[in-house]
Amino acid sequence: MTRKLSLTVEGRNVQVHVHAGDLPDAVSFSGPIAVDSETMGLSLQRDRLCLVQLSDGGEHAHIVQIRKGDAEAVRLKAVLADRATLKLFHFARFDLAMIKRDLGVACAPIYCTKIASKLARTYTDRHGLKDVVKEMLGRDLSKEQQSSDWGAETLSDSQIAYAASDVLHLHALKARLDAILIREGRMEMAQACFDFLPTRADLDLAGWENADIFAHG
Amino acid sequence: MTRKLSLTVEGRNVQVHVHAGDLPDAVSFSGPIAVDSETMGLSLQRDRLCLVQLSDGGEHAHIVQIRKGDAEAVRLKAVLADRATLKLFHFARFDLAMIKRDLGVACAPIYCTKIASKLARTYTDRHGLKDVVKEMLGRDLSKEQQSSDWGAETLSDSQIAYAASDVLHLHALKARLDAILIREGRMEMAQACFDFLPTRADLDLAGWENADIFAHG
Amino acid sequence: MTRKLSLTVEGRNVQVHVHAGDLPDAVSFSGPIAVDSETMGLSLQRDRLCLVQLSDGGEHAHIVQIRKGDAEAVRLKAVLADRATLKLFHFARFDLAMIKRDLGVACAPIYCTKIASKLARTYTDRHGLKDVVKEMLGRDLSKEQQSSDWGAETLSDSQIAYAASDVLHLHALKARLDAILIREGRMEMAQACFDFLPTRADLDLAGWENADIFAHG
Amino acid sequence: MTRKLSLTVEGRNVQVHVHAGDLPDAVSFSGPIAVDSETMGLSLQRDRLCLVQLSDGGEHAHIVQIRKGDAEAVRLKAVLADRATLKLFHFARFDLAMIKRDLGVACAPIYCTKIASKLARTYTDRHGLKDVVKEMLGRDLSKEQQSSDWGAETLSDSQIAYAASDVLHLHALKARLDAILIREGRMEMAQACFDFLPTRADLDLAGWENADIFAHG
Amino acid sequence: MTRKLSLTVEGRNVQVHVHAGDLPDAVSFSGPIAVDSETMGLSLQRDRLCLVQLSDGGEHAHIVQIRKGDAEAVRLKAVLADRATLKLFHFARFDLAMIKRDLGVACAPIYCTKIASKLARTYTDRHGLKDVVKEMLGRDLSKEQQSSDWGAETLSDSQIAYAASDVLHLHALKARLDAILIREGRMEMAQACFDFLPTRADLDLAGWENADIFAHG
Amino acid sequence: MTRKLSLTVEGRNVQVHVHAGDLPDAVSFSGPIAVDSETMGLSLQRDRLCLVQLSDGGEHAHIVQIRKGDAEAVRLKAVLADRATLKLFHFARFDLAMIKRDLGVACAPIYCTKIASKLARTYTDRHGLKDVVKEMLGRDLSKEQQSSDWGAETLSDSQIAYAASDVLHLHALKARLDAILIREGRMEMAQACFDFLPTRADLDLAGWENADIFAHG
Amino acid sequence: MTRKLSLTVEGRNVQVHVHAGDLPDAVSFSGPIAVDSETMGLSLQRDRLCLVQLSDGGEHAHIVQIRKGDAEAVRLKAVLADRATLKLFHFARFDLAMIKRDLGVACAPIYCTKIASKLARTYTDRHGLKDVVKEMLGRDLSKEQQSSDWGAETLSDSQIAYAASDVLHLHALKARLDAILIREGRMEMAQACFDFLPTRADLDLAGWENADIFAHG
Amino acid sequence: MTRKLSLTVEGRNVQVHVHAGDLPDAVSFSGPIAVDSETMGLSLQRDRLCLVQLSDGGEHAHIVQIRKGDAEAVRLKAVLADRATLKLFHFARFDLAMIKRDLGVACAPIYCTKIASKLARTYTDRHGLKDVVKEMLGRDLSKEQQSSDWGAETLSDSQIAYAASDVLHLHALKARLDAILIREGRMEMAQACFDFLPTRADLDLAGWENADIFAHG
Repeated sequence: MTRKLSLTVEGRNVQVHVHAGDLPDAVSFSGPIAVDSETMGLSLQRDRLCLVQLSDGGEHAHIVQIRKGDAEAVRLKAVLADRATLKLFHFARFDLAMIKRDLGVACAPIYCTKIASKLARTYTDRHGLKDVVKEMLGRDLSKEQQSSDWGAETLSDSQIAYAASDVLHLHALKARLDAILIREGRMEMAQACFDFLPTRADLDLAGWENADIFAHG
Repeated sequence: MTRKLSLTVEGRNVQVHVHAGDLPDAVSFSGPIAVDSETMGLSLQRDRLCLVQLSDGGEHAHIVQIRKGDAEAVRLKAVLADRATLKLFHFARFDLAMIKRDLGVACAPIYCTKIASKLARTYTDRHGLKDVVKEMLGRDLSKEQQSSDWGAETLSDSQIAYAASDVLHLHALKARLDAILIREGRMEMAQACFDFLPTRADLDLAGWENADIFAHG
Repeated sequence: MTRKLSLTVEGRNVQVHVHAGDLPDAVSFSGPIAVDSETMGLSLQRDRLCLVQLSDGGEHAHIVQIRKGDAEAVRLKAVLADRATLKLFHFARFDLAMIKRDLGVACAPIYCTKIASKLARTYTDRHGLKDVVKEMLGRDLSKEQQSSDWGAETLSDSQIAYAASDVLHLHALKARLDAILIREGRMEMAQACFDFLPTRADLDLAGWENADIFAHG
Repeated sequence: MTRKLSLTVEGRNVQVHVHAGDLPDAVSFSGPIAVDSETMGLSLQRDRLCLVQLSDGGEHAHIVQIRKGDAEAVRLKAVLADRATLKLFHFARFDLAMIKRDLGVACAPIYCTKIASKLARTYTDRHGLKDVVKEMLGRDLSKEQQSSDWGAETLSDSQIAYAASDVLHLHALKARLDAILIREGRMEMAQACFDFLPTRADLDLAGWENADIFAHG
Repeated sequence: MTRKLSLTVEGRNVQVHVHAGDLPDAVSFSGPIAVDSETMGLSLQRDRLCLVQLSDGGEHAHIVQIRKGDAEAVRLKAVLADRATLKLFHFARFDLAMIKRDLGVACAPIYCTKIASKLARTYTDRHGLKDVVKEMLGRDLSKEQQSSDWGAETLSDSQIAYAASDVLHLHALKARLDAILIREGRMEMAQACFDFLPTRADLDLAGWENADIFAHG
Repeated sequence: MTRKLSLTVEGRNVQVHVHAGDLPDAVSFSGPIAVDSETMGLSLQRDRLCLVQLSDGGEHAHIVQIRKGDAEAVRLKAVLADRATLKLFHFARFDLAMIKRDLGVACAPIYCTKIASKLARTYTDRHGLKDVVKEMLGRDLSKEQQSSDWGAETLSDSQIAYAASDVLHLHALKARLDAILIREGRMEMAQACFDFLPTRADLDLAGWENADIFAHG
Repeated sequence: MTRKLSLTVEGRNVQVHVHAGDLPDAVSFSGPIAVDSETMGLSLQRDRLCLVQLSDGGEHAHIVQIRKGDAEAVRLKAVLADRATLKLFHFARFDLAMIKRDLGVACAPIYCTKIASKLARTYTDRHGLKDVVKEMLGRDLSKEQQSSDWGAETLSDSQIAYAASDVLHLHALKARLDAILIREGRMEMAQACFDFLPTRADLDLAGWENADIFAHG
Repeated sequence: MTRKLSLTVEGRNVQVHVHAGDLPDAVSFSGPIAVDSETMGLSLQRDRLCLVQLSDGGEHAHIVQIRKGDAEAVRLKAVLADRATLKLFHFARFDLAMIKRDLGVACAPIYCTKIASKLARTYTDRHGLKDVVKEMLGRDLSKEQQSSDWGAETLSDSQIAYAASDVLHLHALKARLDAILIREGRMEMAQACFDFLPTRADLDLAGWENADIFAHG
């Protein structure tokens, strides 16, 4: 069952497709896929995965609702696990852990715009998606619905718009961030960090969520 | 020029060889090498590398004095860079950064008893070498000379004994820690962490020393 | 002596009845009663109870002024102590302690929208009444008069409106929060917490106000 | 398979029985049972239950080793779940959560000497078992083995002695603490706190481990 | 030399008289005098007294400029030291210390609206003059010029208006605060606090500025 | 009923008289009286007064046990309230509040060796009784029994010795501290602080226990 | 290669000249020169110098872009190192360190408006350039572009305007600050501080960046 | 009036001369003089200078008692102000400020072993005199009398020994520290820091005692 909305998200006409339980067969992606997720909260111990949003940078965004107690989602898992397709996240660490915990999928390979921003935008310590999008793309992301009941059976239009908006800018951000990473000679370090992210998520799930495993103390 | 000392370090007779500038040709190691270093302090920006200590777990420990402004040490570098030999450290991150900065060598592959201890000894938050050695091997490491002038041209006997003692227990620790890591199913995560250590050291040298690059904030 | 005001509080016509000293005989409630109180401040040691507000969710709100040194209020106490009627509070712990201290009444049974919100709205850490009402009911509660002289003999109209507004939304909140608690399977834990609230208030009055009695440290 | 040790623990001759996997049929208890547990660490997310220690205050202490991946322990569970027998803990909250998580047993009814100490010994803020035992019973508990590898297949004698010692004093402590609680009129509050402990443990398991659910903020 | 300004300060027509060095003979006050001072900063060790403002609650406010290195001001001192006239301050402690240090005058008797507010307005922790005036008198005090160069030889009109405004409300505040202090039975404690203020200022000048002399630690 | 003990407290033979409920008629004091009290804890809200200790500096120390729910103690109150006799305390603030709360007596006049020490011993921030006695009198006060059950019906000998020892040194301390206060010209400030102490205790009882009423913030 | 912009910066017509790599021969300055720099960030270890801005207080501002890996800039260095010309900075410490590190030039003599402000404007703790300019000159400095990618090859107009604006007010600020420093007798201390600034920058570069070398601890 | 003591301070026979009010004419020094001072405490606002201790490294130490209200000390001042003689301090900043405040003397030139230690001993953050003497000279300094009544008219022998001991090691420390400073190329920075110390002391006296004038914030 899919609900379609034609939304104008940040001045762009986007078709948002909300799918119950899994991606339909008809949906396919080309090139890197921007991925985000929404949960009942930030706790890996408590809060279940509610939505996975995906976009390949085109005019469509797809939102899969994960029903409580039902995490089949065969086609979604196949997309996330497909090693031939780069997945773009902002702060991948959290999404990777949630996806692995509830869908059982090891998502790879990964590009994380938050880590890229930390390595490229040394002139600031503001690396939230809203801040990066504002400075690099000149667009204002609304964060109003960020804290809302993502587990609701029926999402409001503003929830859907918010959920979709988080995957609409990652392709553009990657391009801008890569340019600086290359210019400043930091691409190799960035890549090594991206590659470690699944292990970082595994550490979170295994109980080292609050520890910097590499710290001295 | 090599100075030899026959010391009883922690109830064990050890031949400690202090070499000025580099390892002599005659020295060879078999199997994994325990490595440690001493510096003028903890600052990557300020404090130079003074000593590199090595031991293959046998009756000999080798200490190479790195002279100020002279970091040739061709044979030492070859040993450290030899990809066929596992290097054991305790808190490898710091030593790797110092060695790369002053000797220009990317040390690999790595085993770090501090990270192993964090993943294995979940029942404590004391992962200093002294603590791990005390609990796992039942031996008391003196830390009295830890803060001393390692840049001095002539080291005191107690400095030499202290420097040597830090590489004498790493082989035994690895065995004990591996047993728990395997029993608890954490060897794979540990290995991924060890493999990331050179990048973590590169981040330190590149200016992210005080940041947990994977943190949210 | 009762003062009547016909107020439009948050877009709703409400009859607010301000009673000096006690509820009049004529007032009766049906079903759960929303209860709130206003005091001279937050200190159980220092600040006296000034008002108790009540509403059964209908078009009337009742405010009882507790006069300094006079805490008869026989009818009010009967309502609060009536075990057959559920009392709805937001952060019941404080009100229960104040009511027990100044009116000598053990108020029960209890429903607390703050605890319910903590257990249901895991996606946020904002559980103040204003925040919960804003997100769940879409209404803006003014908090302007929150800090004012509730011990004054004659209350201003804006004080009365503020005092009344805190009991007008609790019935609606309970419905919304229960829906999530049930959906997520947390109703039983919530109920056990509600049932412990009178003991928590007793602990406050007995001198453990600043301690989490269940904490390790 | 049971290993027997005749130990002198704190000047008392005690027979300690270490059972692999479950209590043997032959073991029975009379009256309240002191219970403690040892785990791989303090994390409910990560660290498995290793031992459950029990004593009815007589000359015998029983230690059940819970094997990794095997939590049958039918007889142990029956003892813990037996509503007719009071279980004495020190800081029951942690043990209850661990036992429920790994053995699936809701342990009740409960007496917690830590909560009792907080309510009775108002003249101190030291409520660790070692402190309470020292002041009230005049005995010194060694805490040396507190942090050790409780998941080891073969426990050392000092581990066994340490594990047993934690259940040998709870009966005597209860008597001393009850005397003060009654004298100061706090028995009722203490009982209400004990009764809430299983819910407090459920909250820990459900993801509110770091929250004081009754706090304002 | 006196400069006169006819200002409308907070909706009230006030004649502000700026006197260089001392009050002129012609100025006299009747009843309690509101007093405030402006300095080069908050340090008793460093920042000199620049202005003393006075008002007896009527239509005139007087500002005396204390010239650097000249603290004659015979008439001003006589007014401040006059034991027959109550002096009203907001946070008298600071002004008393500055006045004693630079003018050598022990100012008494004292009424402090900040202490009165702390004892009366238990429902808030905002006891700054701006906050008290706002809530009790419904007026908005501008604090824009609070941090400015009060040592300038020629003050700007907005500086003069700001300096004057701080003494225009203290009489009205005292009336409002006294009413609550009396109602709640706290007048005696307030008076004892006012009487201790000169000693508190002496302690500040003697070197205990950062210590609560009555504290345990 | 009085229990007599002949104790050697800190190398001095002292007759300690433990009186149940009140001082007997036969006891009289000459000159300033050192006073201390022991309670069930530090909370003015929770912990009852258990003992009042008195000594006039001679060979006798008197301890009055205040029974739970019985605070007659007519003779003790008369001694404490006698305005003709100076009472010496260490940290009088706490004892004054406890005595006023439980005995209803306003104790005066007061000398506090803690405040005197703060004003005299500027070379240290250690003003606990143990520290002051150690430095000024060269004696070691044991603090071992400080935290113990002072509400017990029968006190142990070590409790009695501890309780007595706190009033045996105050006369000597006063002499030493006065010498410095006079030498450094601080006697007047000290006296003003002593005189404010009953008000400070009243503020504690009235609910400002955690506030420095003279602070800016 | 020079790019010219005629900008209205804060209500003033200014010709801004952006030079690639170095100042052109034709540019000369008369009197004190205001200097500022922009970098890739705040880290002396990581972030390279991107721009140096200069103005002699007239209608022209010059911006030199330092290209990555190219720090020739012979004419710029000559101007900075010219001991006959006073260089005005705001928080010179940082700029001096960056300039010395990347251009190898010891910049002297120095006037720092931040230190001058700290010594003159004792009535505030806000010594950021924006705050000082606002209060002393009545102008609003935009800080919007402060955090942006100064290493970009082509700067935006708003970046250029921002970079230029930081050197346009320092001459006027110096005049205002000197007046107070002289009036309050602090010019000599200020000068000694200015003279120490190059050493302070050397300490930063040598590894004492986070230490107050004069502190006790 | 001079009191002579022949003391064995740290295993060395030293003649300590305690002079009332000033150095006698007969005393002369050759070469650098180690200087220390003792005061009534650490507050520049409150605590007077009590002693100045001097030693030229030979077998004599001189202690001048500064009497309250009498700071003539003509000969002492001449020695301190003599620009031809280097004065060695440990943490000169404090002593310089105290000496300038109470004796009116600008002490110069200066060598400070604390700053030298910070620049040389980068391997530790322990730069207290006791720590530096322990590590570099292998001697244990007692700090027992550090906090004592230095304003007493008659000092105890242990006070005199303590006061003298602080000037007996500075010559030897300087030699050891200079060796490292030269070896590591930091002598020039150290000298610039020593030269700034009188200004740092002036800033302390002028009211910037708690500020790092060079800090950003």
